Order: sequence, then structure tokens, then C-alpha cells
Amino acid sequence: MTHKLSSEVDFLDCIDRHFPNSHPHLIVGRGDDCAVLSCPERICLSSDLFLEDIHFREQYFSPADIGHKALAVSLSDIAASGAVPLGFTLDLMVPEGRNQVYWDEFFNGMASLAQQYNVPLAGGDLSKSPILGTSVTIWGAPTRAAGGTPVFLNRTGCSEGDIIFLIGTIGLARTGLNALETIGRNAMEEYPAATNAHLRPMPQIEAGQILSGYSSITLMDLSDGLARDIPRLLGEKTASSADKPSTKGASINITTDMLHAEQLSYAQKHNLDPVFEAFKGGEDYALLGTCPASIFAELVVKLPQMQKLGIVTSNGQIVVNGQATTEHGFDHFA
Amino acid sequence: MTHKLSSEVDFLDCIDRHFPNSHPHLIVGRGDDCAVLSCPERICLSSDLFLEDIHFREQYFSPADIGHKALAVSLSDIAASGAVPLGFTLDLMVPEGRNQVYWDEFFNGMASLAQQYNVPLAGGDLSKSPILGTSVTIWGAPTRAAGGTPVFLNRTGCSEGDIIFLIGTIGLARTGLNALETIGRNAMEEYPAATNAHLRPMPQIEAGQILSGYSSITLMDLSDGLARDIPRLLGEKTASSADKPSTKGASINITTDMLHAEQLSYAQKHNLDPVFEAFKGGEDYALLGTCPASIFAELVVKLPQMQKLGIVTSNGQIVVNGQATTEHGFDHFA
Repeated sequence: MTHKLSSEVDFLDCIDRHFPNSHPHLIVGRGDDCAVLSCPERICLSSDLFLEDIHFREQYFSPADIGHKALAVSLSDIAASGAVPLGFTLDLMVPEGRNQVYWDEFFNGMASLAQQYNVPLAGGDLSKSPILGTSVTIWGAPTRAAGGTPVFLNRTGCSEGDIIFLIGTIGLARTGLNALETIGRNAMEEYPAATNAHLRPMPQIEAGQILSGYSSITLMDLSDGLARDIPRLLGEKTASSADKPSTKGASINITTDMLHAEQLSYAQKHNLDPVFEAFKGGEDYALLGTCPASIFAELVVKLPQMQKLGIVTSNGQIVVNGQATTEHGFDHFA
Repeated sequence: MTHKLSSEVDFLDCIDRHFPNSHPHLIVGRGDDCAVLSCPERICLSSDLFLEDIHFREQYFSPADIGHKALAVSLSDIAASGAVPLGFTLDLMVPEGRNQVYWDEFFNGMASLAQQYNVPLAGGDLSKSPILGTSVTIWGAPTRAAGGTPVFLNRTGCSEGDIIFLIGTIGLARTGLNALETIGRNAMEEYPAATNAHLRPMPQIEAGQILSGYSSITLMDLSDGLARDIPRLLGEKTASSADKPSTKGASINITTDMLHAEQLSYAQKHNLDPVFEAFKGGEDYALLGTCPASIFAELVVKLPQMQKLGIVTSNGQIVVNGQATTEHGFDHFA
């Protein structure tokens, strides 16, 4: 079982062992020029790259971690739309030097998560490549929430006075990343929660579906950290919007009791401000959203893990714990 | 205009200049966690990698050629399903060292083809990367052919006695590749048609849609050459089929009058057998299919460019011009 997967057929066989090729949503599965999908009137769809030394490091990511996270970050986009994942494709860039044990672990990590959300692998592509990487495209259907109108949630459209809420952690994955970068995979012993948050993020699929019953909510997944994602939530310029400055602002409060003990101990040890670290964050794959103040209490009953982070203002500033900030987080291209 | 695109926002602006972000099929376009698509009951979907030094070489591909071909190979899968392309996503791997002129040309090449088929760019991802590459996911709707039942065509399911047909060239792109590999972009002067077939393949979208009116047809796109793709057409083991050997065979005839003058002159000059070269082929993005003999004449009236290549047999062999062959073409992993 240590032999190489030396042909495309070997690889496809390996994929077939890990991923079933039938599902009520799949009319034609893997193996033809196209998959054929049974669709509702509307679907949501997203595509993401996950590349060696850009998005993950093999020094401390196990093959199963890589397989898991490549799919998890895409599922998180479905969560942010409040949708039910229906299927995904995998374009896999295959470098030399990995044996079958490696790929079985990789596909195991991915297939476990796929099974948990009952989402079939509908197709994709394989290619030799100088680097290990994936491109995952995923799509989903609107939730049929009891009593509510099924909608896909958008990230923009909040109003002054709306409550900014959070479901999930802020900065925990950043602490994990920092610990893994400095002490490698051994960091998992000292910082088990933080390293797990970076290596094995879990998409907030169920929470997204509950929120999709409320059309007055805006929602996005917190992939780049609050510093970078709050301006997007407020309607900062994106690819789809016109070139107008946002007049919306946000006043948020991050208290240390919102942070994990590992974040606090790591910050103390390395002389960092844990609140500022949490604000910068990155790759938490929490849900960040806004709702009218009038429905917040109702939401908290349904989602007890929901936290109030702050409020939408009209002064164009991002204020954290009373201090205006111009921090805009990390740009992969800067 | 020679400055770098130094931030993600610069890049998204550049993409916005080349690709409209509205289309009747796009309910929510680029800029949110997911695009939202308006869908018919069934869609077909395919995803393909297009990587530097695996699928193309920058020595002789212009930026516009790369942009064109990255989308063309995906459109070809939609053609092979007999469908109407509805939208696509682009995951773009961005290496350092290209300026805005480069990216404008790249996106121009892609956007021209997208415009020709009225297919919107619905989303995707951008990442720094050590290599230039794309992952394109594309989807399409069934054709509403006049009088016929709209179906997606599959590659498998042919019967003994069916005619094997071809729409497009065989081996012309291979001649172009060989010429470009040996003499670089200057090969475009001596072999304009062959190099163009490799650099700028055109998907057979219209032909695929006409064929989709006939449910007795099987169809695939000829991406890896006849030697490798005919066994697939006959139902050779693929990711989706059970592990049973095919008892179907094919008897095909390739005559020199089916080949382009550039193929013949290149073969003569380099002491190659032009028929064997055409059989090996690769990246022609022609359509290869089968139909019952009873409807072939009707099809040729609708598609005068359709050529009879041979016939499906029951002896498990691939016979070319009367000679049995075991040639199985090129495997990216072997």
C-alpha cells in the first residue's frame, strides 16, 4: 500500500473508493464530460483555491487536514449564504512524490466532511503540477425554513442601528497559525483548540440555515479577519459594487471574555495585545452578520452561541472598544 | 499602463472592466460569498485545470491565447453535452512579474470568447501562486431543440453497428503543438492553421446543440486524441462505471484527405506517419460521437461538416485502416 498512484485511472479508482458517485441531486455523476445536476429554481455557487505555501503548509498540515480544509472553506461560503450544500467539484493539482497512503489520508479528510453534510463529489479534474493545490467549486440550494421565506443571504445591505453579530470564534485560528508557524505541529499539544481552529475549521452550516429564515439579516463568513471583513459587511467597494465610499461605520466591542484561554496565554507569552490580535484574526470561518435590533433576542433563543459584537453606525469609521481604527487587515496581493 | 496590479482590489477592478457582472441567469453576481443563479430543472457542469508548463507554455502562448484556451476547453465540455453555456467561475493563480498590460490581454482573450457565447463570469477566486494557472468551472442548460426532446448527451451507450462520427479536426492541434515546441511562436508563419488549432481552439457549441435533439447519439469532446478517447466512447472503465472490460470495438478509417495540408507537410518534413499522428492527436476539441446508421444521412444534412470516421464493432478491438492497434494515447500521469 505504499505504491504510487501512477496513472489517472489509479487516481480515479482511489477517488471512487472514498466518494460515492450517486446522490439524489446527481443525475449523471463523475466520468462524463459534464455532471448533470437536478436543481431548484435558484442555486448559490462559489469557487475557492487552496494552494500549498499560500493557504497551507505541508510542514504542519497532515494530508487529512489539507483534504478537510480544502472543502471546509468552500462549505463556509454556502453557510454564509444560509444554504444547503448540494454538491461540489474538485480540481486537484498533483505533485510528484506522494504515495497511496498519502492520498488515502487526503481523501479521507475530505470525504468525512463531505459525508457529514451529505454533499456528493460531482466531478472535477486531475493534473500533474509542481505544487499541491485544489480548486473546489460548491453549490447549494435555499433552505426551506419552517415558516420563513427561503432566501439566500447577502453580505451587504445592513442599516444604521443594526446589531453586528458573530457566530464562532475570532482570532483563535490566528493564534493557531502563529503557534504552528513558530513551533510546528508540536504546537498542537500546547494549543489544541487554536491549532485545530486553523487546521480543521468547521463551517457554520446549521447556523447559516437558521439565519436564512430572516430576510432582514446580512451575513458573510469571516475568512480574512474582522479588520478586513467588517468594511465588506458595511458595503465597502467590492467587485460587484460601484466605486462609492461607504458612509456606514461600525462600533464594536471585543472583550477578553470573548476570547479563548489559549489566545490569552499565547498573547501574554509573546507580548501581543489579544484584542488587537482577535480584531486582525483571519481564517476563523465564523459567521459575521447584521440584524435589526428588534429581532436579536429572538435569534439568540434559536442560536444561543450568537454573540453581539457591536452596532452599525453612520460615521464611516470602524471603532473598536471606543478607538477609531484604520487597520484594514491582510491583502494577499499587497 | 505598465504598473503592477498590486492588490486584490486592483485585480477585481481589472476583471470588472472586462466582464459584465449582470446577465439574466445571474441573480447575484460577483462580490458576495456565493453567486446566485437562476436555473432550469437540470444543469450540466464541468471543471478543468489549465496550468503553466502542463497545459500551456508561456514561451509561445500569448496572454490572450492563455485566457482564450482556459475558457475554450471548458466550453468544449458544454458542447460535448449538447448544452447552452450559462455561466462560469474563474479561479486564477497569479504569479509575480506580470504587469497590467499582461492581465488586460489575458482577460481580453477570455472575455472575447465569453462574449461570443454570452456566458457571464459569475465568481471565482484569486491567489498568489508560484505558477500561472486557472481552474474554470462552467455550467449549461439543455438545448430547447425544435421538435426534439431536450437532453444532455452522454459519452457512453453506443451500440454495435452505430456510426462513429467526427466534427472538427484530428491531429491538427498536435501538429501545431509539435511545431511550436520545436520552433517556438515563429511556427505560426509556416503552420498558421495548426498552431491556431493548438493556441486558440474553438468549442463546437453550435454542433453540440444540434446533436442534442437526438437522444440516440453519444457524444464526447476529443481532448486527448482518438487513441485515448475512442476507448472511452466505447465504454472503457471510467470513474463512474463498474470495473468490467468493454466488449465493444471500433473500426475506423483515417485517410489523408481528412487531414490538413499542414499536417501532411509537417509529417513529411519530420518523417512521421500523418495517419498515426492524427490517430494519436490530442487537444483538437473536436466532437467525437456515435449515432444509429439510420439517422446519419439526416445529421449530415444539418451538419455538413460531419465526417464518418468508422463503425462500432463487437470484437473489443480498435482497428485503424484495417490494422488492430493497442495504442492508448497519452496519460498525464504515466
